Amino acid sequence: MVKIAYIAIGSELLNGKITNTNATKAGRMLEQAGFQLAEIITIPDTWDAILESLVYAHARHEVVLISGGLGPTKDDITKNVLAHWSQSPLVEHGPTLEFLVRRYETLDRPLTDLTRAQAMVPAAGTVIPNAQGTAPCMAFEQEGKWVFSMPGVPFEMLHILAHEIIPRLQQSYQQLTPLRHLIRVEDLAESVAAQRMEALEEKLPEAFSVSYLPRKDGLWIELSTLAKPEELPEAQKAAADWGAQIDGLFPSEIYARDDRPLEVLLATAFREKGLTLAIAESLTGGHLAATVVSISGASTFFAGSVTAYAIPVKISVLKVPAALIEEKGVVSAEVAQAMAQGVRKLLKADIGLATTGWAEADEEVPAQAWIGYADEQETDAKHVRLYHKRAVNIDRTAHHAMRFVLKKVRGRLA
Amino acid sequence: MVKIAYIAIGSELLNGKITNTNATKAGRMLEQAGFQLAEIITIPDTWDAILESLVYAHARHEVVLISGGLGPTKDDITKNVLAHWSQSPLVEHGPTLEFLVRRYETLDRPLTDLTRAQAMVPAAGTVIPNAQGTAPCMAFEQEGKWVFSMPGVPFEMLHILAHEIIPRLQQSYQQLTPLRHLIRVEDLAESVAAQRMEALEEKLPEAFSVSYLPRKDGLWIELSTLAKPEELPEAQKAAADWGAQIDGLFPSEIYARDDRPLEVLLATAFREKGLTLAIAESLTGGHLAATVVSISGASTFFAGSVTAYAIPVKISVLKVPAALIEEKGVVSAEVAQAMAQGVRKLLKADIGLATTGWAEADEEVPAQAWIGYADEQETDAKHVRLYHKRAVNIDRTAHHAMRFVLKKVRGRLA
Repeated sequence: MVKIAYIAIGSELLNGKITNTNATKAGRMLEQAGFQLAEIITIPDTWDAILESLVYAHARHEVVLISGGLGPTKDDITKNVLAHWSQSPLVEHGPTLEFLVRRYETLDRPLTDLTRAQAMVPAAGTVIPNAQGTAPCMAFEQEGKWVFSMPGVPFEMLHILAHEIIPRLQQSYQQLTPLRHLIRVEDLAESVAAQRMEALEEKLPEAFSVSYLPRKDGLWIELSTLAKPEELPEAQKAAADWGAQIDGLFPSEIYARDDRPLEVLLATAFREKGLTLAIAESLTGGHLAATVVSISGASTFFAGSVTAYAIPVKISVLKVPAALIEEKGVVSAEVAQAMAQGVRKLLKADIGLATTGWAEADEEVPAQAWIGYADEQETDAKHVRLYHKRAVNIDRTAHHAMRFVLKKVRGRLA
Repeated sequence: MVKIAYIAIGSELLNGKITNTNATKAGRMLEQAGFQLAEIITIPDTWDAILESLVYAHARHEVVLISGGLGPTKDDITKNVLAHWSQSPLVEHGPTLEFLVRRYETLDRPLTDLTRAQAMVPAAGTVIPNAQGTAPCMAFEQEGKWVFSMPGVPFEMLHILAHEIIPRLQQSYQQLTPLRHLIRVEDLAESVAAQRMEALEEKLPEAFSVSYLPRKDGLWIELSTLAKPEELPEAQKAAADWGAQIDGLFPSEIYARDDRPLEVLLATAFREKGLTLAIAESLTGGHLAATVVSISGASTFFAGSVTAYAIPVKISVLKVPAALIEEKGVVSAEVAQAMAQGVRKLLKADIGLATTGWAEADEEVPAQAWIGYADEQETDAKHVRLYHKRAVNIDRTAHHAMRFVLKKVRGRLA
């Protein structure tokens, strides 16, 4: 398989100001196209660091992708390093200059020397159009290997990678077919899942790998491989067989088999059954509703929500009996159910969902939540222990609540 | 300054399954301690990749930090590479074995060969205690340079970096003092800010750098430098002088000068004035309330919120007049103010804050929001244009709303 390196240029990636999500996205895009990143190198925008990394990466890999250091500021020196490395002078690139002139006319701004300098490119490079920005992207072929220089701006970089670079890689190199079998399981720690999988993993062919990804909505277990064209039918059969064996290890825990977000699964289930949802939040403070409406068109099934953070609001707005709070405590199955019932009635929805709990432990009480459910026939509640810090506990509770109501809605006949 | 490299080991960092936030956090922690990362290298957990990167990084830098590849699974081969590289055999480390035996007794689980293998370490390394986990951390000194092998689990890695490795670096190398001058400005694009700063940046001494960080709560402009001990007083004076000049370029836009989150600034202002807040959300769907309560102790000033996603809820629960919605439209200054007033009264709070708008553009209407404000004496509204995708637009609106109410509360005498 072709070895691809990614050099990310920028001091802000090294001092913790910015996380290198560009590299994550490029890695995922390449994998989906049948390629794999073999190395990511992150360096500051200094002449020595860029040149040394380029020489090193070019020696070890067949393709080098460089991102960053192409803009119009004085720090952006990638182009000069590339001219030196390719032993070719900087020359003015006519079409890029024309593009810049037109663009600045449209913006009604003068074309400064600094901006004009963006049209200078190393003579040895081939300019690749940058449809999303002004900095030209370049390709160099040396000793049968490729070096691509891309902008650092995320959407420009991803656009050029998808539309210009990956098609060139697909012409030059064999791409593999990514195969994967994904299951998402609930209420299961990674170590417990890994223990169940241990014997299977021992027997698994080397071409396959298993990842355990603890996500906010549960544990994702993924079997994956990259198959060569001539081995594809055999690999597909093997992936299906091993996938079925993995499924068999989690007979009651699988709740999803694709990577659609939980809120999409929830919206789909509510729409299929023609039901509406109302939410009452204490512990989650609005985060549960915000997650449910984070997708387009949530208004077709989501009636609304109340964040009843203060106890008087639980009583006056959600009509939770004061005596119930007194008797059972505000963090209880009964209050969670009463909140769900109260918000269902207030907002005239089919189903009510509620959260109440402690997002942080104190000396006496561990962090925990009660999730309440109510429809026209049934009320139910589920208890959840929380082990992380405040923000994570809030998010986990929201995802527990979404899985709880998803199961209820999927189970309904209506 | 000492050159520090960070080698991150893990295939999941290369195929886009996981973002390398470990490196971001390590970079920030080192910077705050007066050091800087010079390079981050991300590689898969294969023998060749680990060994080649280690040799390369050790040749170019004075300190190499390695994270990942120390756990008890068969993929974790960092330790074997380190034994080969340091030309020393793996030997059993007594204290680590004792620790493992005790730990597995507590867990009431058998100590398998795989687990026991975790106590094997290269003879040339010094074991550093890992207070947070089972994988031992190691230090190697070769040719006057240091190599540290750390676990890949984020909190274990950060704990060891903070408590074991940084103190050792501070003994061995000169650390610099990070100086910074931060301003956070509102309603200003990065390019506009950079244009205002252009003349100043031309004159700025080379030791100083300016970063423009577009954050969800506005643009952060940061002047920073790392000062040597002997230059510290001079550097502090220069930082203050240049900082004052930067301030002068943004006379009306600065709303914060430290990195406390906006929700903390908001909570501080509400508590200082002894006021309470109620929120009504349409466009933001719960996200505004969730952000406000994301900090501990929000219950001292936050009464609660209503997500009035459906129009009937705006009318029946928030008491927005149906005729007003009919006349002005649901996305209007008037409806935003009526929602703010309605929720203020419903939840008996001093101040009401509301959002209404379109999170996504369609053919006829651009994405936009109205933010409504109400207290016992005044109502007001602010219009916001939105330029991003749905999730970002929702988050931006929530932050606009928080800045809007922050200004109002800060301006009150009460």
